Amino acid sequence: MPNLSTLSNHQVRLAARPVGLPTRNDWSFTTEPVAEPAPGGVLIKTLALSLDPAMRGWMNEGKSYIPPVGLGEVMRAGGIGVVLASKNDAFAVGDQVSAGLGVQEYCSIAAGDIKRNGLFKIDTRLGTPNQWLNVLGMPGMTGYFGLMDVGQPQPGETVVVSGAAGAVGQTVGQLARIKGCRAVGIAGGKAKCDYVVQELGFDACVDHKRGALHNDLRAACPDGVDVHFENVGGVVLDTMLGLMNRFSRIIICGLIAEYDATAPYAYTRLRSILVNRIRMQGMIVFDWKDRYGEALHGLAAHLAAGRLKYRESVMVGIDNAPKGLIGLLRGENFGKQLVKLV
Amino acid sequence: MPNLSTLSNHQVRLAARPVGLPTRNDWSFTTEPVAEPAPGGVLIKTLALSLDPAMRGWMNEGKSYIPPVGLGEVMRAGGIGVVLASKNDAFAVGDQVSAGLGVQEYCSIAAGDIKRNGLFKIDTRLGTPNQWLNVLGMPGMTGYFGLMDVGQPQPGETVVVSGAAGAVGQTVGQLARIKGCRAVGIAGGKAKCDYVVQELGFDACVDHKRGALHNDLRAACPDGVDVHFENVGGVVLDTMLGLMNRFSRIIICGLIAEYDATAPYAYTRLRSILVNRIRMQGMIVFDWKDRYGEALHGLAAHLAAGRLKYRESVMVGIDNAPKGLIGLLRGENFGKQLVKLV
Repeated sequence: MPNLSTLSNHQVRLAARPVGLPTRNDWSFTTEPVAEPAPGGVLIKTLALSLDPAMRGWMNEGKSYIPPVGLGEVMRAGGIGVVLASKNDAFAVGDQVSAGLGVQEYCSIAAGDIKRNGLFKIDTRLGTPNQWLNVLGMPGMTGYFGLMDVGQPQPGETVVVSGAAGAVGQTVGQLARIKGCRAVGIAGGKAKCDYVVQELGFDACVDHKRGALHNDLRAACPDGVDVHFENVGGVVLDTMLGLMNRFSRIIICGLIAEYDATAPYAYTRLRSILVNRIRMQGMIVFDWKDRYGEALHGLAAHLAAGRLKYRESVMVGIDNAPKGLIGLLRGENFGKQLVKLV
Repeated sequence: MPNLSTLSNHQVRLAARPVGLPTRNDWSFTTEPVAEPAPGGVLIKTLALSLDPAMRGWMNEGKSYIPPVGLGEVMRAGGIGVVLASKNDAFAVGDQVSAGLGVQEYCSIAAGDIKRNGLFKIDTRLGTPNQWLNVLGMPGMTGYFGLMDVGQPQPGETVVVSGAAGAVGQTVGQLARIKGCRAVGIAGGKAKCDYVVQELGFDACVDHKRGALHNDLRAACPDGVDVHFENVGGVVLDTMLGLMNRFSRIIICGLIAEYDATAPYAYTRLRSILVNRIRMQGMIVFDWKDRYGEALHGLAAHLAAGRLKYRESVMVGIDNAPKGLIGLLRGENFGKQLVKLV
């Protein structure tokens, strides 16, 4: 075991509940000593953290699918780390693990919190630590179960995904292609759209910044839309409601357009749900926790065969996590947004 | 066969596409001679017509789940009639039948239109002609398949239905009770709410005219809402979105609040679909056409056992059909709105 007393743990804590887009002042930056784990516990050194749009929701007060981050608490985040000290037989020093590490350099997980924190050893034969935060991690699981289980795409159908150049979006579109569907992305800006089509192999990608969303989508989806995977919400979702086919499915995975808005978006096309017998369903990936293994092996096989490509946007240093999250919420990332620790 | 040349057919035709709530001037009133059916065809004398909120939608131009009624065409309506003349071996003079008769006193259905018009002989041992337009007809089928197939209620769950005193609503709530659920209605006015609770046996009914919808519903649904059967839409649906439990279901069966509105309603609580993993699904009863028999026998058994109560609002005379439909759209009906022919 290293001499823990020489280490200090830099942490990013929630300092204020943001209104609209967060600013750096909504977090505080603290340093704590690093302590030996209690019996049954594990001390982990963070290697990389995942930044996710959902983090914006966790900063709000009030009821959601998980409790909010408390003011003064370490900001919640998933990550990959290496076991630095262990008093638990299931984890050995040097093991690479995935867990809810929080935005901090070191994370001590008590015996009773291991399950809640989702601590598990990653299988580095299936993918790199970064891939375990991306295609093999939460974004991959989200794309897989959202598309396959909720969306139930059939070969020949048209699948649209918003946030197509993001971590979830890139997985969804490529899985749709593998399934034999026409995959159409929605992304912000020409560079992202080019990437989605040219590198990821989507059939088309519509730039929502061009200001002609409805017409561009109609042109990109000549047979209408059978499955829409929604990561964005707002005007994108309202526009999509007008393009859905009969008996189509909408997966509500994220509403990033609403997270920073100070007033909720007002949707005007719900009548399409009735007329077209649309099934619209919300999903939170944690509900599939017991089935991650099922997705993992399929996704790893696609990765190994080169059928699943991806990009990462990497911020360096724990203190840059807020900057990375703000950029993500502004749509500045390309692919999975990570924080790499130095 | 009676002497058809002595008969004249009074008809109500669509004269104009209404903006907002229809007025009597949106229809014209015509008289035609009654002709003998062509080979394979059937001539039917209308006994009673069903008035349904969906008829308002059929008056609009543009794409919907079925084509609109054309200007100058007989207004579309389902009804029960008696065969007056038949050149089809499957139908004998005197048979009581159900079909899309239209708002007219006599309906001649050509051989090639029998299927499209949904013509079939009713089994009067299962119910009266009026019951075949109500609990055993479209409203009964809608309530049965919408609640059971789409809503999938489980014993002990809370089921809310809007338009609770209407033809579909009264069936939904009573079927929910039979299934072992808590049934809560939403209706307009104290008289309807009293009827829903005291006569139909719902556990509670909230009067949306009281102006305290959210709080009243919260009080009526102490364990939240697991299934919401939506006949109304607008502020009712938006309010319900804030009361739904995790993994709950919303059946979008009708959006009567929107049919007459000149601008679509702006829904602000779609985020609840994500947070609570709600499944919201549109339904049109015709999609279950091949399974009506399955519902019919269950519903007839409930009727016979006194477990399914209902009311009817009856208008007399074909020329009063517009008045009946306008009243229905204003929520003036109690139970199934029928037009009885003299």
